[in-house]
Amino acid sequence: MLEVMISLEQLGKLSHISPSKIVLLVIDGLGGLPDIETNKTELESARKPNLDKLAYDSICGLTIPISSGITAGSTPGHLAIFGYNPLKYEVGRGIVEALGIDLELKPNDIAARGNFCTVASNGIIIDRRAGRISTEENTRLCRSLNEISINGVEIMVHSVKEHRFVLIIRGDGLSADLEDSDPQQVGLAVKWIEPISAGAGETARIANEFIAQAKKKLQNEKYANMVLMRGFSRHPNFPTIPEIYKLKPCAIAIYPMYRGLARMLEMQVTPAVENIAEEIEEVSRYYKDYDFFFIHYKNTDSRGEDGDFNAKVQAIEELDAVLPDLLKLNPDVLVVAGDHSTPATLAMHSWHPVPFLLNSKWCRPDSVTEFSEKACNFGSLGHFPAVDIMPLAMANALKLQKFGA
Amino acid sequence: MLEVMISLEQLGKLSHISPSKIVLLVIDGLGGLPDIETNKTELESARKPNLDKLAYDSICGLTIPISSGITAGSTPGHLAIFGYNPLKYEVGRGIVEALGIDLELKPNDIAARGNFCTVASNGIIIDRRAGRISTEENTRLCRSLNEISINGVEIMVHSVKEHRFVLIIRGDGLSADLEDSDPQQVGLAVKWIEPISAGAGETARIANEFIAQAKKKLQNEKYANMVLMRGFSRHPNFPTIPEIYKLKPCAIAIYPMYRGLARMLEMQVTPAVENIAEEIEEVSRYYKDYDFFFIHYKNTDSRGEDGDFNAKVQAIEELDAVLPDLLKLNPDVLVVAGDHSTPATLAMHSWHPVPFLLNSKWCRPDSVTEFSEKACNFGSLGHFPAVDIMPLAMANALKLQKFGA
Repeated sequence: MLEVMISLEQLGKLSHISPSKIVLLVIDGLGGLPDIETNKTELESARKPNLDKLAYDSICGLTIPISSGITAGSTPGHLAIFGYNPLKYEVGRGIVEALGIDLELKPNDIAARGNFCTVASNGIIIDRRAGRISTEENTRLCRSLNEISINGVEIMVHSVKEHRFVLIIRGDGLSADLEDSDPQQVGLAVKWIEPISAGAGETARIANEFIAQAKKKLQNEKYANMVLMRGFSRHPNFPTIPEIYKLKPCAIAIYPMYRGLARMLEMQVTPAVENIAEEIEEVSRYYKDYDFFFIHYKNTDSRGEDGDFNAKVQAIEELDAVLPDLLKLNPDVLVVAGDHSTPATLAMHSWHPVPFLLNSKWCRPDSVTEFSEKACNFGSLGHFPAVDIMPLAMANALKLQKFGA
Repeated sequence: MLEVMISLEQLGKLSHISPSKIVLLVIDGLGGLPDIETNKTELESARKPNLDKLAYDSICGLTIPISSGITAGSTPGHLAIFGYNPLKYEVGRGIVEALGIDLELKPNDIAARGNFCTVASNGIIIDRRAGRISTEENTRLCRSLNEISINGVEIMVHSVKEHRFVLIIRGDGLSADLEDSDPQQVGLAVKWIEPISAGAGETARIANEFIAQAKKKLQNEKYANMVLMRGFSRHPNFPTIPEIYKLKPCAIAIYPMYRGLARMLEMQVTPAVENIAEEIEEVSRYYKDYDFFFIHYKNTDSRGEDGDFNAKVQAIEELDAVLPDLLKLNPDVLVVAGDHSTPATLAMHSWHPVPFLLNSKWCRPDSVTEFSEKACNFGSLGHFPAVDIMPLAMANALKLQKFGA
């Protein structure tokens, strides 16, 4: 087509404050694939009268998370939903993990995601997650790693959960241009960390020294006898949601990563809760204080990744059951979207377009009467890029001025 | 998606002269929203057998004026229809107004749109349009403002209609980088004009002196006792329609702004007429002399902006009634499009995609049997950006060479 693409900066100039409220419900890994027996996807198999009724009253479509055929990771999948081109706005994994556990980072801090893992005596990785050790175990091990001392820098190791931790290296002249030590599969040796750019040699040396000292401290552990490091990164300083959209945003999420991502974009993150019913209670509790609510529902993705079709169906039904409590708030714009598909048959994230609905007084409803992959394909929004979700939500909330005279 | 966008320059290289004729009928503010009682849009409510028959014989779709969720102003909405990326090709409001009343501008002239307005004795704006004074009244006031004299520059004030006028400042070393004096809402004071760039200080001083002198001259007027200035700008020198498309274009429009815009793109503008029947007579009259006809129909937008659903329905029916006179000419390509939606329920321009049809011997008709928002949603063109209208029209007129060997 002829060139015509709006930038986040241009979009930002059109956005203005208004009293209307937007609720964005992200059902992680929402899209699926048909079960081989029933020929129905998870969504098509679920009893979900509330989502179906909502689809009937809404404008529907299928979002392409990043680009045709591209499978989105959790971070880029969410960045796209918030309007950020994930191919331009990249966030290191280390930063996302660090933000997810409420770490205050300094601008020059280097953060990396760490896994406790199990290696054989010949150094080959046997289990990349050390048998998913308990969080208590993790805390004990992190306390030990925190004793590591390296000349000229400060080393901080923070427990996340199960096998996961965050390493922060604080000091002058550090670089985040480092390769991972994690080869991302078992049966291989842990890699030495290599610098990617010329100025990163000293930081690579520090990171390798950390690993060497960690290995020594962990040598008597049965499972967690080594660490795998990846995603060395620095705070990216993106334009924030309040800056771009002039919104007062609130995020309700259970998993650390989504909480961290929301915080990075300067959403206010509510106290952590346990389940989707409590998440929606949080929306009610804070409803008067904000004009944008991002609700993250994780179970659909987790059950999809487990490859448990029925459990994913059940996760959808659980969400549907509490949806009326959300609808009671009567937001001016309600969006139900997913960051990517996670078909249980594939047991992983996938590239398939994701069912989408937008409900508002001004949405020009289409003829879709069910919330599913097949039905949304005939929605008025057709297939469209996830980065267009926010402009559509803002428009329907009458929070965007017209462009030009 | 992978990067694949054609530029206007690349498109221009493919265009060539041929005897075929293209008629582009722009129905301003064409798209609508359902009436709350009938659940039908303006188009769905109108009796329009000719448009429906045409849709049956055509390829249909919905155009996205600029980008999802973005509401187009009249100028960017039309620029997109003509193939210009409106995010790149921006025209100042002053220039558009000046061109609309047939002003010959010199390359360094600064043009601004003026409103006569009413201010209270404390300087607060009460009415941004001075009660929409008559055009005769406007002419009298402009004659008075034309007496304003400022050292070193020539000041010209031209009446447009009702409350609107154009100011031209002619001289050396002027800059168009000026803020508006118009705060765009009542209840606020008229602003001083501030320079946006470093070199614009002197022009800002001149503009403020014009306003001060105008205020003095208008002090005894009951309604039009002040002026509001906006859109300071200079001729943008875009590539023109004849340059890009090798077309000999003719524009038929009633409203000044659209006439001005057409002239700026070097279309020949026919003498002004009064209504759509006369506009179509003009097409017949000049049919042999040109190979591209842009017809602008304003009433749909005006009635939509009035919030008068039934009047917009009637405006559609009026157009439909005279359509056979246009069809008689049997153009090789007939396009019916809109620059944006103007739903009567919203009473303003909106972001909603706009019904579109293209009729030609080579159009590959789809299964659409009605010209409406819902029906066009199932057209073969799906949702597509308005900038792609001209490439499609040119292709169907066999006026584009193939790209590459």
